[in-house]
Amino acid sequence: MNASRPVTVACCQIAPRVGDLAHNRHLGERAIREAALRGAQVVVLPELAQSGYVFHDLAEALALSETLEGPTLQLWQALARELDIVIVGGFCEWLEGDRVANSAALVDAGGVRTVYRKAHLWDAENTIFTAGTEAPPVVETAFGRIAVMICYDLEFPEWVRLPALAGAELLCAPVNWPWGPRPVQERPAEVVRVQANASVNRLFIAACDRHGNERGVDWVQGSVIVDMDGYPLAGPEEGGGEQIVLASLNLAEARNKRISRHNHLHQDRRPALYGEEGLLG
Amino acid sequence: MNASRPVTVACCQIAPRVGDLAHNRHLGERAIREAALRGAQVVVLPELAQSGYVFHDLAEALALSETLEGPTLQLWQALARELDIVIVGGFCEWLEGDRVANSAALVDAGGVRTVYRKAHLWDAENTIFTAGTEAPPVVETAFGRIAVMICYDLEFPEWVRLPALAGAELLCAPVNWPWGPRPVQERPAEVVRVQANASVNRLFIAACDRHGNERGVDWVQGSVIVDMDGYPLAGPEEGGGEQIVLASLNLAEARNKRISRHNHLHQDRRPALYGEEGLLG
Repeated sequence: MNASRPVTVACCQIAPRVGDLAHNRHLGERAIREAALRGAQVVVLPELAQSGYVFHDLAEALALSETLEGPTLQLWQALARELDIVIVGGFCEWLEGDRVANSAALVDAGGVRTVYRKAHLWDAENTIFTAGTEAPPVVETAFGRIAVMICYDLEFPEWVRLPALAGAELLCAPVNWPWGPRPVQERPAEVVRVQANASVNRLFIAACDRHGNERGVDWVQGSVIVDMDGYPLAGPEEGGGEQIVLASLNLAEARNKRISRHNHLHQDRRPALYGEEGLLG
Repeated sequence: MNASRPVTVACCQIAPRVGDLAHNRHLGERAIREAALRGAQVVVLPELAQSGYVFHDLAEALALSETLEGPTLQLWQALARELDIVIVGGFCEWLEGDRVANSAALVDAGGVRTVYRKAHLWDAENTIFTAGTEAPPVVETAFGRIAVMICYDLEFPEWVRLPALAGAELLCAPVNWPWGPRPVQERPAEVVRVQANASVNRLFIAACDRHGNERGVDWVQGSVIVDMDGYPLAGPEEGGGEQIVLASLNLAEARNKRISRHNHLHQDRRPALYGEEGLLG
């Protein structure tokens, strides 16, 4: 690994169809290949890109769930191997006891490196998914140290802190941001939170949103890649629809948390004052 | 207290002069009176509005420091009583043992209600100030529950969480944001972080910046008042110089952390997974 070589990261803002697994696999493959053609070494897909998002109930989600041996994870592994890239994508994961998790896998040429299960569930997800209980993983890849979390998780800065303190240089976040009204000319609050999370940790964040109305729900379509200062390098494009958002990142820069002669963003934390047990380093 | 009555909040973006205490008192008084005339019930002044910011060393800061019995705090108390308002302003506080703190007082008609000492020190402040060790206070005022913190503190979302969990409806933050380069057309990251802090807690934030070159340092001049969704209600005005940024806030709204049928921003936190000791409620 040459840590100082820039890495090209892509968010593939696609439109999965709820329940149409074959279509979603095809859509994902096309986007991944297109991103790789354009130079991407790390490709992020949306949350639940494998299944779609707006389930009627647990029974429907269960019927659409897959394990790591399922066709979607097998496809992503084959593509990661063939194209020598990292893929981070969301899928509906079957769990023992006929439960499901809102999960994201990170796969590379070596196979499935980690599966993260969303720990903060949004709205009706609470009636369908079993929440994860493990902190966002940080995976040492050929391109840098990559962490994974999902959508609403990003509204908890404590959660972003954990992989940042554990050395993540890039956080890849599959999201499905439901559209909502906001003041004209304001950037969506979802994107603003991504920017702030990046800047208070000095890490890069790639958040991959989706598009395509699904059972009455529209989406922010706010896929964005932000730098360590919290400024967007690519995206968000208002109403951009289907698109690949690409940026070249020097991930090694994210190892330096020094922001002035006397300041280091992580060492300046005062865990004892925050009520932390000192587990966080 | 009629909790559902809107409260008018003002940030007075003034230009203190380092070392000119009489000038700074005069400047503060003029701004406070002007803000009150325009209807403000809560008036925020910048960080170290009493003394100026760019000290050469501890000796200079000590010479400019005041106690609660000093002329600045006496003036703010007299004004709060006369105008029946809340004032939150930054001052260089003398501490026993000839030390100084970068402090902010909240005063109302009843006198000094709290003094907060900045816990996260920026750059050369580390060579001058003694860092605070107390969490941001939350004061029940006639206009609502108001918390106080200062500038760099805002880069630690854990710190904002504490008063938010303790019931703060409005966070008043005296700041001195040193100017730095950023991409054209991007809002300053300092403001973006304020927006995110507000939205992940659903509380209002009024951050009062300064202007006026001081010993070579320029300022963002980014005074801003943001709503619970994280969108600015007033400010920031690029290069706005001397100004009063005013907004009318329904602080009682900040008591409701419910953001969907199944979500409550604070109850959705998972403290055990964050390594918290459960001290935070």
